[in-house]
Amino acid sequence: MYHHVKKLMYTVNIGTPDPAFGNMLLEQFGGANGELAAAMQYTVQGWNCEDPARKDLLMDIGTEELSHLEIIGALTRMHMKPLKTSREAAESDPMVTIAGGGGVNLFNSVGDAWTANYLKVTGDLYVDLHSNIAAEARAKIVYERLISFTDDPGSKEALQFLMTREITHMRAFASALESMGKPAFTVGTIAPTPNLVDQYFDGSTGSGEEGENTTGPWNNGQAGLKVVASDMAGRR
Amino acid sequence: MYHHVKKLMYTVNIGTPDPAFGNMLLEQFGGANGELAAAMQYTVQGWNCEDPARKDLLMDIGTEELSHLEIIGALTRMHMKPLKTSREAAESDPMVTIAGGGGVNLFNSVGDAWTANYLKVTGDLYVDLHSNIAAEARAKIVYERLISFTDDPGSKEALQFLMTREITHMRAFASALESMGKPAFTVGTIAPTPNLVDQYFDGSTGSGEEGENTTGPWNNGQAGLKVVASDMAGRR
Amino acid sequence: MYHHVKKLMYTVNIGTPDPAFGNMLLEQFGGANGELAAAMQYTVQGWNCEDPARKDLLMDIGTEELSHLEIIGALTRMHMKPLKTSREAAESDPMVTIAGGGGVNLFNSVGDAWTANYLKVTGDLYVDLHSNIAAEARAKIVYERLISFTDDPGSKEALQFLMTREITHMRAFASALESMGKPAFTVGTIAPTPNLVDQYFDGSTGSGEEGENTTGPWNNGQAGLKVVASDMAGRR
Amino acid sequence: MYHHVKKLMYTVNIGTPDPAFGNMLLEQFGGANGELAAAMQYTVQGWNCEDPARKDLLMDIGTEELSHLEIIGALTRMHMKPLKTSREAAESDPMVTIAGGGGVNLFNSVGDAWTANYLKVTGDLYVDLHSNIAAEARAKIVYERLISFTDDPGSKEALQFLMTREITHMRAFASALESMGKPAFTVGTIAPTPNLVDQYFDGSTGSGEEGENTTGPWNNGQAGLKVVASDMAGRR
Amino acid sequence: MYHHVKKLMYTVNIGTPDPAFGNMLLEQFGGANGELAAAMQYTVQGWNCEDPARKDLLMDIGTEELSHLEIIGALTRMHMKPLKTSREAAESDPMVTIAGGGGVNLFNSVGDAWTANYLKVTGDLYVDLHSNIAAEARAKIVYERLISFTDDPGSKEALQFLMTREITHMRAFASALESMGKPAFTVGTIAPTPNLVDQYFDGSTGSGEEGENTTGPWNNGQAGLKVVASDMAGRR
Amino acid sequence: MYHHVKKLMYTVNIGTPDPAFGNMLLEQFGGANGELAAAMQYTVQGWNCEDPARKDLLMDIGTEELSHLEIIGALTRMHMKPLKTSREAAESDPMVTIAGGGGVNLFNSVGDAWTANYLKVTGDLYVDLHSNIAAEARAKIVYERLISFTDDPGSKEALQFLMTREITHMRAFASALESMGKPAFTVGTIAPTPNLVDQYFDGSTGSGEEGENTTGPWNNGQAGLKVVASDMAGRR
Ligand SMILES: [Ca+2]
Ligand SMILES: [Ca+2]
Ligand SMILES: [Ca+2]
Ligand SMILES: [Ca+2]
Ligand SMILES: [Ca+2]
Ligand SMILES: [Ca+2]
Ligand SMILES: [Ca+2]
Ligand SMILES: [Ca+2]
Ligand SMILES: [Ca+2]
Ligand SMILES: [Ca+2]
Ligand SMILES: [Mn+2]
Ligand SMILES: [Mn+2]
Ligand SMILES: [Mn+2]
Ligand SMILES: [Mn+2]
Ligand SMILES: [Mn+2]
Ligand SMILES: [Mn+2]
Ligand SMILES: [Mn+2]
Ligand SMILES: [Mn+2]
Ligand SMILES: [Mn+2]
Ligand SMILES: [Mn+2]
Ligand SMILES: [Mn+2]
Ligand SMILES: [Mn+2]
Repeated sequence: MYHHVKKLMYTVNIGTPDPAFGNMLLEQFGGANGELAAAMQYTVQGWNCEDPARKDLLMDIGTEELSHLEIIGALTRMHMKPLKTSREAAESDPMVTIAGGGGVNLFNSVGDAWTANYLKVTGDLYVDLHSNIAAEARAKIVYERLISFTDDPGSKEALQFLMTREITHMRAFASALESMGKPAFTVGTIAPTPNLVDQYFDGSTGSGEEGENTTGPWNNGQAGLKVVASDMAGRR
Repeated sequence: MYHHVKKLMYTVNIGTPDPAFGNMLLEQFGGANGELAAAMQYTVQGWNCEDPARKDLLMDIGTEELSHLEIIGALTRMHMKPLKTSREAAESDPMVTIAGGGGVNLFNSVGDAWTANYLKVTGDLYVDLHSNIAAEARAKIVYERLISFTDDPGSKEALQFLMTREITHMRAFASALESMGKPAFTVGTIAPTPNLVDQYFDGSTGSGEEGENTTGPWNNGQAGLKVVASDMAGRR
Repeated sequence: MYHHVKKLMYTVNIGTPDPAFGNMLLEQFGGANGELAAAMQYTVQGWNCEDPARKDLLMDIGTEELSHLEIIGALTRMHMKPLKTSREAAESDPMVTIAGGGGVNLFNSVGDAWTANYLKVTGDLYVDLHSNIAAEARAKIVYERLISFTDDPGSKEALQFLMTREITHMRAFASALESMGKPAFTVGTIAPTPNLVDQYFDGSTGSGEEGENTTGPWNNGQAGLKVVASDMAGRR
Repeated sequence: MYHHVKKLMYTVNIGTPDPAFGNMLLEQFGGANGELAAAMQYTVQGWNCEDPARKDLLMDIGTEELSHLEIIGALTRMHMKPLKTSREAAESDPMVTIAGGGGVNLFNSVGDAWTANYLKVTGDLYVDLHSNIAAEARAKIVYERLISFTDDPGSKEALQFLMTREITHMRAFASALESMGKPAFTVGTIAPTPNLVDQYFDGSTGSGEEGENTTGPWNNGQAGLKVVASDMAGRR
Repeated sequence: MYHHVKKLMYTVNIGTPDPAFGNMLLEQFGGANGELAAAMQYTVQGWNCEDPARKDLLMDIGTEELSHLEIIGALTRMHMKPLKTSREAAESDPMVTIAGGGGVNLFNSVGDAWTANYLKVTGDLYVDLHSNIAAEARAKIVYERLISFTDDPGSKEALQFLMTREITHMRAFASALESMGKPAFTVGTIAPTPNLVDQYFDGSTGSGEEGENTTGPWNNGQAGLKVVASDMAGRR
Repeated sequence: MYHHVKKLMYTVNIGTPDPAFGNMLLEQFGGANGELAAAMQYTVQGWNCEDPARKDLLMDIGTEELSHLEIIGALTRMHMKPLKTSREAAESDPMVTIAGGGGVNLFNSVGDAWTANYLKVTGDLYVDLHSNIAAEARAKIVYERLISFTDDPGSKEALQFLMTREITHMRAFASALESMGKPAFTVGTIAPTPNLVDQYFDGSTGSGEEGENTTGPWNNGQAGLKVVASDMAGRR
């Protein structure tokens, strides 16, 4: 059961509205790595989760992300306000202007409708926690980019708040994953095939405009993986 | 530049075709965590990557995933063959039958068109490697489920091959991430706000059909995070 | 700001799980007229709304719909539980089984991803309230159909709860619309063109398998509209 | 059976082409509340309708909307003509220019493909008429916004024609709904649960940046609904 | 300007309804190669067309396809009627049943919403006619498959009518293309690079489960194209 | 089985980056008629194909298109590089900037995710070859338009290379189609209905802003088709 209080988790103030920046902010309102995506991914995982402790974690963070959605929405509305009356501003997002009257909606900066295809929900808790750590890393870098594209102090502060929270979440999910006590790389219950699992296939070779063939810890044996000669060599 | 050789990376043989299982296999051909998604995610990241060593890694695995797509397609076609002539089989996937003539196409088990919205590509290598580790974990669990829903030995063997490779990839990506030498949770370059980053907001409380409030390493201080009283308490 | 309590707004109990019925229930979890669509439509309208009283109404109902989403999710999970282990059950929704591990996700009964294209948000309060009344009418009829396709008493009771609430909401939105005090059909501020607005164009005529030409209050003058001879007659 | 005559229902003339305005007009050609959406919603409802009189109404208006689609398409093409040759104009809609050669197609102002997810078709006539009234209200406000973003007299006149027709349709659908003679809020045949249907749940409370808690006719008893104390209070 | 007459272009009669076949028929109502796709592709091309004669052709056929949409819709409704009341029938298309009340809507046999992404409209008449010839060939083969999956004589007859018309259209479009008098393969106005245009790159070689390397008129010189040694050979 | 070599099939060099042109180039990276669409259409057809010779052809060209994807991606990245740091450049594609860090991804110039709905794959070789000829014609005209919207010599040269290859492919597919030796318009195996197949229905008549009624080889008997009086005349 949910309850809403008409207070933002973080108070937003901006200087001069910047409509094109408002359009960019939509990435975190209705975009692929935005707050609704985070809220829904963790909440749906939480509802499906049968581990009571981590279920609480998923619901705690899933709910916080809804409050983030409200914050980024408020910030976006402030920057997009000129779309209601200015033709020039309107061109920065014609759909928001004409169809939406200048308000926010669950579309990204290029007008793509939010879709559940953004979510990663497998119903396997160990896997889902991996997906969540990655999701938080993505949200963090997106907020960092938004911060770098505005000079408005109030906007920067609000985005800094939201960005910081994603690192908190990343740490919480990593802790929940680690505390499951599973050996690394033991996803599910069926063991991978021995030997085959240690072979590194060298699918891309040569050198040119697109790089060169190299080695690193992932294929020099340090990680237990060794390059095998590509099966393609003799077949052509 | 790509080259194709008309040999499968793993030879597939099945017993009696099982059309409904063939339909399930489409999850790994044209589905959200399937082989095209893996191939495109790593390859596009690879093309964008400016770290030569990890660019090679991304291209190696991205290319291998294309070869996996070919294998899972071959396996799926074998199981779906009855759709060409049997009305009963056709009902297991009417779109494949009527629009596709019983062959494979880039749609999942419920006929959703493959979409680039499945991909996670941020252009930040450290973040992208997190996304890839999670993607491999998802692919692994999906293959495990497919294995558990068939009794056909030849199908199980081919799926075991594909499943094993995802663990190899997961190890390779984890090694590439670790060898970047970044401190944990240092995504990008802007530091999170001190103190705020250590606060765990208890967004979901109480107890009932949807669980109970708990503590764990993620909010008991072990991970450096501490529960703060929800700001909502006094506001209602 | 949101808060979640781990108690369902309505306690759900079912008898024997019915996987195919669980699949149908997904229409109200991740479908076009389902609970997330209602929650998001009203909440986003609420955030955009500048009329304080009706903003509260939109947030009240938008938040209640989130609690409905949780209920329908719980009911669906109960019915879909056999997908985790039974091949026969799995065929009722292969994507939920293989990709989702038998849990819920924001997809409808035929596996289409929830999309913000389902939402109707114009930023004009008078218009949005019309959209909301219609949305509640749709949700009501969908719940009624679900009730008619199950014999399980516990499922019927939960659906009756949810169905009833939609009528409450329909009444609340109608009251909010009426209390705005606008004359009927006065959308926005630009007046329609006199005379032209009273003309009823008879775009479909004749009789046959697809019906016959008729009159009713909408084109016999009762509503102030009169049929005009189609401009097409003389042009062929 | 359909017939087309090569005459627009309303003759369109414009002054100087305005490519960015042409891009905005696409909202009504291939957008969520545009003319194809109207045409398809009413026509498909009409084909499904078993009430002969209202079936005729749905087909009359559904067909008229096809003629509107042709008008808005003609107007859009005039404004977009510079995209065929001017690089600067081309930037106002790169997809129309590069993929479409500067002509119209069924995409909106931000290039999203028209989708049947825009449609509201339940097969319940009483419900569908509610959806149609709301759809006409949305179309009206969208045309009003388009009128406000151009200074071209010819464009304004054509849009005024189209806007006016939506009010005609709104009146016709409202008349058709009222003449069904159903008591208000009696959707379908299953009665809502007494008492529960009169309870207004106060899902959003408090006051702050997102408003304050209020009362109005919808929750002060005037509409028969009374606020009940939120069940969440005691549970936290 | 459009007009509709309430008579089907072809009268449809069926024997016993076959719900699963009705579901298959949706491919031609709301599917990728169905009647709406045909109607919209040709009509939008027609509106964009500046060659008066071929514009008439595009509008003639575009309009006929709308009449086909009506026929296939009527046939589908007859077969889907049991969905309104039978739980077993309902399982053949849960979305049509629960969300749509058993009527047709613009979704395909697996419930995917019709999308303008199905259309091929480039605004180059010579190119568009190529797309239309291919579209008619696709529609023909789909109708042929539908005919082969039913034993109902009335259904077969209606589908035979619709299938025949596509061949008529294919001939008309081919005639319109040929009568443009352009030399073969002269798309647009920029000439391809000499010599390079005659080189056939042998991207796939070897032999195995996926075939073998072969020659044919397309790479043995008959069509003016000659195999060049793959640039990849020496680079590995 | 695939192999990748880190060399572009065509070396790309550009002068000054042009971000808005880079955005346009995305049409051929992640757009409807772009290189991934070509690669996947031919490759999936190839995997389904049971004619060994034409299967090789489909795989040869499908694989070459992957190499084209790499080229157009490299060209696009060069033009989009300023998005990483310039706010003005960022506005030319906010999603690429904020979500993608200035790199390429499988989205078109207006940010729509690549979708398998772009593909035409029927599993009937004769039909698929028609679709491929049309696809190549579309790709050619799109490259021609891109060439016309840039003044950069290096960009023009790379696009000329890619454009030329599409004509090669068009010739190869046409040769493969012709060499099947089927009489024209004999799609599949069911014959169209005699006489009916020779009737040209005049669905659009009259004259006005949308053209006039005309005749041409397609309806004057030259192609064996004759206009029949529309059945609608007497029915209104
Ligand atoms: Ca867009
Ligand atoms: Ca390598
Ligand atoms: Ca908690
Ligand atoms: Ca689907
Ligand atoms: Ca009429
Ligand atoms: Ca309230
Ligand atoms: Ca589906
Ligand atoms: Ca070859
Ligand atoms: Ca878009
Ligand atoms: Ca004509
Ligand atoms: Mn967040
Ligand atoms: Mn987070
Ligand atoms: Mn793989
Ligand atoms: Mn992998
Ligand atoms: Mn509800
Ligand atoms: Mn409701
Ligand atoms: Mn209209
Ligand atoms: Mn209307
Ligand atoms: Mn047709
Ligand atoms: Mn046709
Ligand atoms: Mn190409
Ligand atoms: Mn090509």
